[in-house]
Amino acid sequence: MTQQTNWNRVYDDTIKWIREAGKEIMSSFTTSFNIESKSNPNDLVTDIDKQTEKFFIEKIKSTYPNHRIMGEEGFGDKIENLDGVIWFLDPIDGTMNFVHQQTNFAISIGIYEDGVGKLAFIYDVTKDELYHCKKGSGLYLNDKQVKPLKSTNLSESLLAINATWVTENHRIDPRTFSPLLKKIRGTRSYGSAAIEMAFVAAGRLDGYVSLRLAPWDFAAGKMLIEEAGGVCTTVDNKEIDLLDKNTIFVGTQQFHSQVQKEYIQPALDQNFYLRTPSTK
Amino acid sequence: MTQQTNWNRVYDDTIKWIREAGKEIMSSFTTSFNIESKSNPNDLVTDIDKQTEKFFIEKIKSTYPNHRIMGEEGFGDKIENLDGVIWFLDPIDGTMNFVHQQTNFAISIGIYEDGVGKLAFIYDVTKDELYHCKKGSGLYLNDKQVKPLKSTNLSESLLAINATWVTENHRIDPRTFSPLLKKIRGTRSYGSAAIEMAFVAAGRLDGYVSLRLAPWDFAAGKMLIEEAGGVCTTVDNKEIDLLDKNTIFVGTQQFHSQVQKEYIQPALDQNFYLRTPSTK
Repeated sequence: MTQQTNWNRVYDDTIKWIREAGKEIMSSFTTSFNIESKSNPNDLVTDIDKQTEKFFIEKIKSTYPNHRIMGEEGFGDKIENLDGVIWFLDPIDGTMNFVHQQTNFAISIGIYEDGVGKLAFIYDVTKDELYHCKKGSGLYLNDKQVKPLKSTNLSESLLAINATWVTENHRIDPRTFSPLLKKIRGTRSYGSAAIEMAFVAAGRLDGYVSLRLAPWDFAAGKMLIEEAGGVCTTVDNKEIDLLDKNTIFVGTQQFHSQVQKEYIQPALDQNFYLRTPSTK
Repeated sequence: MTQQTNWNRVYDDTIKWIREAGKEIMSSFTTSFNIESKSNPNDLVTDIDKQTEKFFIEKIKSTYPNHRIMGEEGFGDKIENLDGVIWFLDPIDGTMNFVHQQTNFAISIGIYEDGVGKLAFIYDVTKDELYHCKKGSGLYLNDKQVKPLKSTNLSESLLAINATWVTENHRIDPRTFSPLLKKIRGTRSYGSAAIEMAFVAAGRLDGYVSLRLAPWDFAAGKMLIEEAGGVCTTVDNKEIDLLDKNTIFVGTQQFHSQVQKEYIQPALDQNFYLRTPSTK
């Protein structure tokens, strides 16, 4: 069944749906919206999140009935293996920004077949920046091809990292990345994994580390970065599991290998805690 | 002389010049540009920085010959007092972003008369977002009036802070702000003081702390935030000196007073170092 997928058609359909959803989201800013809390005050969800996920699921299910969907808001399928075509969908990545800033959020869609990335899309809605790729055909930002990633020295590199991960926390020993901050050009933090990964893919950032991301958070970003020539692993340099939460570390080849060698491996050697927690 | 200033005319002129400069900067992205280092590898300056400053200085000097200019790139006047009308001009705030990302930089212009803010402008060039105000007439984002800032509890607040200031550094004791990170909704870091202050003014962030900012970095942002009902002080709660570098802390009234009382004052009481370094 999946052998017959017309990927060009899926590509065109997805871009059309993303732009349609983006317009709908933008128009919601002129009206009010309701915020719900998923499980704690920092885990917000809005009507727009849910509407947008339902919009995509309806489109996908009616057009590609054999495809399965793993979506953040839970209206998709229960995915326990990577067989066939799976859409990893985050209708609004960066919900906190969406609610608080009405900017800096993105639609993230990664489409995989038997665990292999085929198409990826991250749409930074308010900036109207669509990062997209078809495996093997290069990375695009809107209609411009983005140059493959260059090597960057640490002293010229920008790392996206949340300040939480270099202060006392339960998930990653703050001594792992703190020393790196003194070596690099600077840090940034935008509050949207999708935007941060799209920025790495486009060379706007050289690396990004984040904890406990879900498959819909990283599936598209991983493909975009790999298509641009960058590297995506778990923080302890293992392959990312598309069916589980992962603590991820991504970057240009040089940034990734240098930081792995000079900062992360020594941290592991000293038994600093670097948890890649599992939901299983 | 300064009593005769037609502020409406200055307002209109400045907006016209900013949009003209913005277009010029955007068009530079299709051509290559040269990067110079000001004093160290992290202090970059480009041809565009210098061209843009010269553009403004020429416009201001020919239209308002009695006004003085304090500009980042050093083509303005040597300012040692606040008498008369002074333009605080940063042609490209966030030069590192400009070079590395071709986004997340801003033109920042604050115009003061005898030390009192009259007009302020922060233009986020690639997003085409112009934050502007005339003292006493409310804050605008492009042509929409922005609502005055609301009170926000710490648990619902976003703070802009660079990860450097919560790790080992020579300027601010990391124990000052680290505990705050556990109480708030999240942190962000964009690498442009102008954008970060504009975001506070517009309610997209609730607070921002940064070290050793120069007058051209904060003059416009300070006015925008105060116009929106927020508070701008040095980190140790003193009045900001428009003629010197300052370590600044800005926020909504509630965020500012709560963080001052519960985090900064206790840090001062314990003799944590919180330097507001002087260039004098």
